[in-house]
This record gives sequence, structure tokens and C-alpha cells, in this order.
Amino acid sequence: MKNNLKGLGLLTVFSAFSQTEMIDYLKQQVSNGTVYTDEATLKKQSFSPRLSSDDSGLALAYIEAQSTADVQGVMRAARKFHVPVIPQDQFTSTVAGADGVAGSFVLSTKQMNQIKEISRADSVAVVEPGVINGDLDKAAREQGMFYAPDPGSKPISGIGGNVATNAGGMSTVKYGATKDNVLGLKVVLADGREIKLGGRTLKQAFGYNLTQLFVGSEGTLGVVTEVTVKLMPIPIGKPTMGVAFFDNMTKLAEAVAEIRISGVYPTMLEALDSATIAALDAYEGTHYSDNSGAMLIFKVDNSIPEVVDKLKALMAAHGAANATVTTDPDRQAELEKLRRDMLPAVFAGQNHIMEDMAMPLSKLAPMMDYIHDLGEKKQLKIYVAGHAGDGNVHPTIVWPKEQTETPQAVVEALQLMFHKTLELGGTISGEHAVGTLKNQWNNEELGEDVDQIQHQIKALFDPMGLLNPGRKIN
Amino acid sequence: MKNNLKGLGLLTVFSAFSQTEMIDYLKQQVSNGTVYTDEATLKKQSFSPRLSSDDSGLALAYIEAQSTADVQGVMRAARKFHVPVIPQDQFTSTVAGADGVAGSFVLSTKQMNQIKEISRADSVAVVEPGVINGDLDKAAREQGMFYAPDPGSKPISGIGGNVATNAGGMSTVKYGATKDNVLGLKVVLADGREIKLGGRTLKQAFGYNLTQLFVGSEGTLGVVTEVTVKLMPIPIGKPTMGVAFFDNMTKLAEAVAEIRISGVYPTMLEALDSATIAALDAYEGTHYSDNSGAMLIFKVDNSIPEVVDKLKALMAAHGAANATVTTDPDRQAELEKLRRDMLPAVFAGQNHIMEDMAMPLSKLAPMMDYIHDLGEKKQLKIYVAGHAGDGNVHPTIVWPKEQTETPQAVVEALQLMFHKTLELGGTISGEHAVGTLKNQWNNEELGEDVDQIQHQIKALFDPMGLLNPGRKIN
Repeated sequence: MKNNLKGLGLLTVFSAFSQTEMIDYLKQQVSNGTVYTDEATLKKQSFSPRLSSDDSGLALAYIEAQSTADVQGVMRAARKFHVPVIPQDQFTSTVAGADGVAGSFVLSTKQMNQIKEISRADSVAVVEPGVINGDLDKAAREQGMFYAPDPGSKPISGIGGNVATNAGGMSTVKYGATKDNVLGLKVVLADGREIKLGGRTLKQAFGYNLTQLFVGSEGTLGVVTEVTVKLMPIPIGKPTMGVAFFDNMTKLAEAVAEIRISGVYPTMLEALDSATIAALDAYEGTHYSDNSGAMLIFKVDNSIPEVVDKLKALMAAHGAANATVTTDPDRQAELEKLRRDMLPAVFAGQNHIMEDMAMPLSKLAPMMDYIHDLGEKKQLKIYVAGHAGDGNVHPTIVWPKEQTETPQAVVEALQLMFHKTLELGGTISGEHAVGTLKNQWNNEELGEDVDQIQHQIKALFDPMGLLNPGRKIN
Repeated sequence: MKNNLKGLGLLTVFSAFSQTEMIDYLKQQVSNGTVYTDEATLKKQSFSPRLSSDDSGLALAYIEAQSTADVQGVMRAARKFHVPVIPQDQFTSTVAGADGVAGSFVLSTKQMNQIKEISRADSVAVVEPGVINGDLDKAAREQGMFYAPDPGSKPISGIGGNVATNAGGMSTVKYGATKDNVLGLKVVLADGREIKLGGRTLKQAFGYNLTQLFVGSEGTLGVVTEVTVKLMPIPIGKPTMGVAFFDNMTKLAEAVAEIRISGVYPTMLEALDSATIAALDAYEGTHYSDNSGAMLIFKVDNSIPEVVDKLKALMAAHGAANATVTTDPDRQAELEKLRRDMLPAVFAGQNHIMEDMAMPLSKLAPMMDYIHDLGEKKQLKIYVAGHAGDGNVHPTIVWPKEQTETPQAVVEALQLMFHKTLELGGTISGEHAVGTLKNQWNNEELGEDVDQIQHQIKALFDPMGLLNPGRKIN
């Protein structure tokens, strides 16, 4: 099932065209955007800083499209020369999903960054793919609404990339992931046609749900050129946030499962283990690690006494009698910042791999246990944090900067974690997608039949195997 | 693109097998279920009472499967003899989506009706397709949760049928339609393999979203044999329900659009026009039609004063100063019953067609106007009601029982409504799917390119064109 790499093979072995001919033709097809071929740009836009080695060969060109016509132009050139196209948005993939490959066209939609419409009357926004998630949210809030999905990359990732990966975030526990907030798409197919999927209605039962086939397809089926999303009204009432400290992550996970079915409908249930808290204390100058082994940051959209009391009671029942809550917006902002600073605090000056399993809720606690034991057994530094309310855990393994190769113990630990995840009925990708780093797990997670169907779907939309070859499926 | 009817053609013209041979073989393949071939059963299970004429020929057999093996057995016989298979669940389609066709196997999953698991710990249920929606909801409530999607057919429709049509309902405005509540599926493909899609995690970003490709696919891509759904916790707090009366549906629709973005997060926003209210009064002995031209039934999951006050203020601002609210469960049950009795009240003793457009929220009011004017112009009795909070409107046209043919004016009115819906950016199916009654509109609603892609997807999963041929796509 490697035929989606054919493009590459043809180019290397049989191409009848010189690089100059190909670039000249490409430039003719891209009338509004910019085509870069200088080595510095190609390197910068081809290699994810932390994820890829730079010996895999350079892309042939990096294109910043300004319009659908540009995207179609790049596809035209790609078909003519059998050159792979790597769709890229803000290039923030954590799974090496948009790195250039040797001899490819890296097609960036980052400059297609117009918010075309914010409609209060329809509760929707229509945006180009390059719009930054946080910018869309800000624009919606100016009109009394918000854009719910809030990945950790909110200040830097684009909606196109969010769609490609089905990005989640902290608020998924209440408002769903990207897939739950996309109503419609425009997509340029490998054959150059731009199709329109879905629309701007809140109910829809007409065609096959091709919109959702494209959400999470990681640029392997087409290039997203426009996205229509739901906007949510800002809930009435004052949000309540709080923190609680548990003896360990297992106790915390048990409390989270109870909160999840208690009827309080949290908008945030974020877990941080002791190692992560210590790293944050060092980074922020705070003193949370004095308290305990695991910290839960929680939020509800209101401050109804029954809800707040219920939350406190549930946490106390699992050993966290010290939960504090606040309705002060400044204090809430501090807590959100604390959670968002988790990554730089943990990564600081070290090599790292952050993982992204999602577990059935009841399997979060055993998974936490397993990861903890694994770290001890393999003598690895593993930080564990995540969107506990969704059963989504992000263990991060770090090792010294000097050690450029990923240590064998890290590779082994990841494999063991993945096997355990699948054994417990989880998925090895909750919100970061598959990219280059996990596509060898398709057969394990999905089974041979579904793996095969994925390749048939791919072949249907992209028979020449031009789009992001070797990613997601392989 | 009619090649999905090939099976039929082959059967009629070239079949080398006698009916007896086919039935004998079929019976051998169905070890747990029952195969019916008597005319009375075939007629009853082949023809939707109100939707189909009974001159289209009889199915060859009606099979009530008891297991996945039975479903696979029917598919095996179907492939051997090139016989079309009509997947059927509780046979409650409103779009003639599961009627038998001449010479077909009608494959019912209504006897596969086990609730396999209700998991409080994971907030999910695992059910067979024949489980009645209301039964699942009841079982979930016994454990402090509920199953959110609540189509009008809740007491009679099965989860398999709900999945096939992406059924919605009154609570979709807050909790989403079937697609938003399905986490995983098992499906028997045309080639007989049973595949497993999705799972029981709340986040999922691994494979292509094939789960959502099957939700709403109306039995044309495979036969659903198991469904894993999200269960929701019962919200803390007392729900508030109420009614408000507006001058007309246009004013009501305008108020609904404001409520939708106000931050009150209603769980129900149901609209009934004056004709519907009058029919309900006649049916129930109530006196709502004394009040006005349009009635809104609303519900929120709580009784926070700011929320209730906000609701009342918004309705008053659109001319409904007379809104009344109640937290009394009995009175709320009466109001829900009123809404649910809408169909029998309107249908009573008449022929009818109920439609199912979903509009962008801002286009609900103009659509209401259009339907009202159309009724006057064509001198038709049109009742208008619907899930206004989703922009989902159900106009029902009735005509006398004696008149067995659908009147030409009705046909013309439907066509005009469909054109207007599409012109305003709506969909002609919000929650009832496509079936036999709307598949000739694929090109209009989806465009030629997407229509073509739908046929390619169909051909990928069902190359022999055996599954529910001529439905959804044609």
C-alpha cells in the first residue's frame, strides 16, 4: 500500500523535466502568491525544528498561496510533473505532519488569512485557512460570541491546520473538538476542482458527511481553502475556576470521572502531575508543589452554588479537601496562564517528545499508573499532564539537549505506552493527529480492514498520490 | 451514475437461479434469524404505509436478523445472486428510505435490540441497532445519565435507523444530532467483513473519520450492527420550561435568533404556527389559539434568574410580553406532550407530506414568510412547526383522504419550497435524510462534483451496488 509515494519515485527516476522548467511553470501558475526557491527558506519551511532531521533532502519550492487560484495552480504543476505537494498552514504540527519532502512543493496557506465573515445572525464565521485560532476567537468575542476549540497552539496555529488535525484543547470537554465546530469547508482536490462541503446550517442530513471526512485528514485528501465554523454565545453568568490537589494522578483521574458524570458540565478539567508542577514552579516562581502529587485546574461556565458545592464535595471525596475556587477574572487568567505555560516550563532547554493518548474515561487512572511505573522502570523523566476531562493525556519524555539521537529507552517507552493505550481501548492520537510519527501504527490501532479502506479513500481522492504522501496513512 | 441498480437488472433479466434456490440458500445462511417469504409479511415490511405505492413489486424475502452472522449471511446470499439488500431497522423512515424493492432481500435489524452496556464510568452505551431510542434513554436515566438525541420518533425508532438518517430532534439545539453523539460503530460491509470504526474515547484524531461517513449514509454503504454512543450527565438544577405567543412566525423566528446567541443555551426552542395550534387545540381540548399567531415552547436546563429573565426580556422585545414559565415537572410534561402530539393532531384523517428544511438561523424568518405566502397562493393547507432553535422547519401539507394521488399543487409547492431553501443557503434535509423522496435533488443541493464523489464513495464500499440501491444517491 505504498503507492501514494509513486510521485516521488517518478520524479527521481524518470522526470523528463529540469528543475528550472518545473519552477518556471510553477511560477506561471501562481499569479497572486509567492514562490520561494532559496535554500534558507526551503530549509526553514521544510523541517519542523524539533521533529525532523535535515538530511532528508530539500523541497523543490515553497509557495505561499494568496488565493484558491494559487492552490489550484500548484496542484496543476504538481500533476504535470508528478511532484508531491505538502499542504502547510502555520506549520505547528507536533507529529511532523507538514514537513517538506525531497523534491516536493511545500504549499503554505498561511497568507490566506482573512476572516471573511463573522455572522451574529447565523452564529457562524467564515474564514480562510491561515487565520490564527486566537484571532478568530478574538473577533468573535468582539461580537459577543467565541470560537470554542482552544488547542495549546491557540496563539500560533491556523484554522486550516486545526481542521487538518482535528485539534482539540481544554474546552473540548464541554464544547467538542474542531470536528464538532466545523459546519462547512471548501477544498481544492488533487485534480484541481474546488468543492464545497456542508454549509452554514446547524442541522444537516442530506449528503454523505464528507465535511467530517476532510476534518482530520491531514492534507492527504485535499487542500482546505475556506472553513465555516459555529460560534458559541458567551454563557450568561460568571465563570468559576479553581484548583485542587490530590495525592497522585490516579486519585485525580478517579475524581475527574465522577465530575464528568455529575451534571456540573465543566469547561475545563486539566491535570498536572508532580513533576509538571515542580517544573512550573521553577518557571513561574510559584509554590504549588508544596501541596501534593497532582493538581487539577477546573472551570465551570457559571457560579451556581449547587454546582460549585458539588464540585468541591466530589473532590473532597477523592482526598482533595483543599480545593479553592475563584470568580476573580485576574486570578482565573493567572490559572489559565499557568496551564498554558506548562509546555515551555517542561521543555525548557531539553529535548522532548510529547504524546497524546485519549483513553476511555475509566481507563485514565490505570494509564496514569502505567506511565508512572514505566518512567521508574526505564529511568526516564516523564511529565504527565493533559485534558483529564476528555481522558486525553499528554505524557512528555525529556532528555538532555546534548544527546541529539532519541534515546533507545524513550523509543521503547513510547512503544510500550502505545501498546498499553490500545490494550485499554484508547487511541494513540486524541488531538494531535498522526503525521509522520505515528502512521506506522495504523494497522495496530485501526485493524487491517480499516487501514485498507483508508488507502482506498486516499486513492479515490488522490489517485496520483500527490498530497502529503506518506503522512497519516503510509 | 445508475450502476447501483445493476443488481436489479441482472436479477430480472439474467438470473440463472430460481426463487426457490435463492430462498433455500438464503435460509442456510441465516442460522439465528428468521426468513419470511409469505405475501402478507412481504407487503407489510416492504411498503411504508403512507409513502409508497404498492404496485412496485414485492421483495423476495424479509429477514429478521438476530446476529452479525445473520447479517453477513444475507450479504453472502445477496452477492451470490446479485440481489439488492434493503437494510431496515424499525421501519419509521419519513423519506421512504427503507421500503423493499422488487426481488430484494429486506434485512431488518429490529430484533438485534440488546443494550449491551451502559457504562457510568465511561459515560457511554453500547447497543445493537434495533434498540428503541426511548428505551436507551430510559436505561441511561436509571443510571443518572441520558441519551440526548430525541427525534419525534423517539418511542418507536431504533438507534440503527437514527444512525442511518442522522436523526435530530428537539434537544439538538443544545446536545447536537445523532452524529454528535455517536463515538463508534460496527458495520457489516457489502463484501461481508464486519469493521469497527471509532471507539469509546471522547477525543479521537487518529484515522479518517469513517464513523461520520457511515452516520447518515442510510444503509447504502453498509449495515450497522453495533453503536457506541455518548451518554450525557443529567444537568444539576431544575429545568425551566415556558410558552410565549408571537404575532406571527416571522416575529417568533427573529426572537429565536436572538435567544440563540444570548448565552442562555436553551435545550428546546420549538415553534408552532397558528394552524398547528388550532389543530392541537382541537385534538387536546386546549385553548392556545386564543392567544396569537405563533407559539414558542422553550426550555432551559436550569432556573437561574438571570437566564429566565433574559429569556423573557428577549421575547418581550419581539412582541411576546405574555411569556409564562414553569418549573413544575407535571406542567412541563404537559407542554412536551403538546409538542409531541403535533403530528397526530395535524395529520388526523388527512393525507399529508411533512418536510424538513434546515435554514441558516437568519433565514428562518424569511423562509416562514415564504411558506405562508405559498400556502395562500396555491390555496394549500400548510401547517408549519419545527425545531426553530436549529433553523429546522417542518412544513406539513395536507389534503383530503379521498384524494389518493398527491395533488399537483402540493408537488409544485414542495418544489418551490426546496428551491427557496437552497436559494437561502439551507438544506432540504435537516434530520430526516434523503431516502427515495429527495435523491433527485442531489445535484441541486450538493452540486455536480460532490454528487459524483458520493457515487465514487458508494462504489468503493459497494461495488456491486447491492445496498439500498437508488436511495440517498441515485
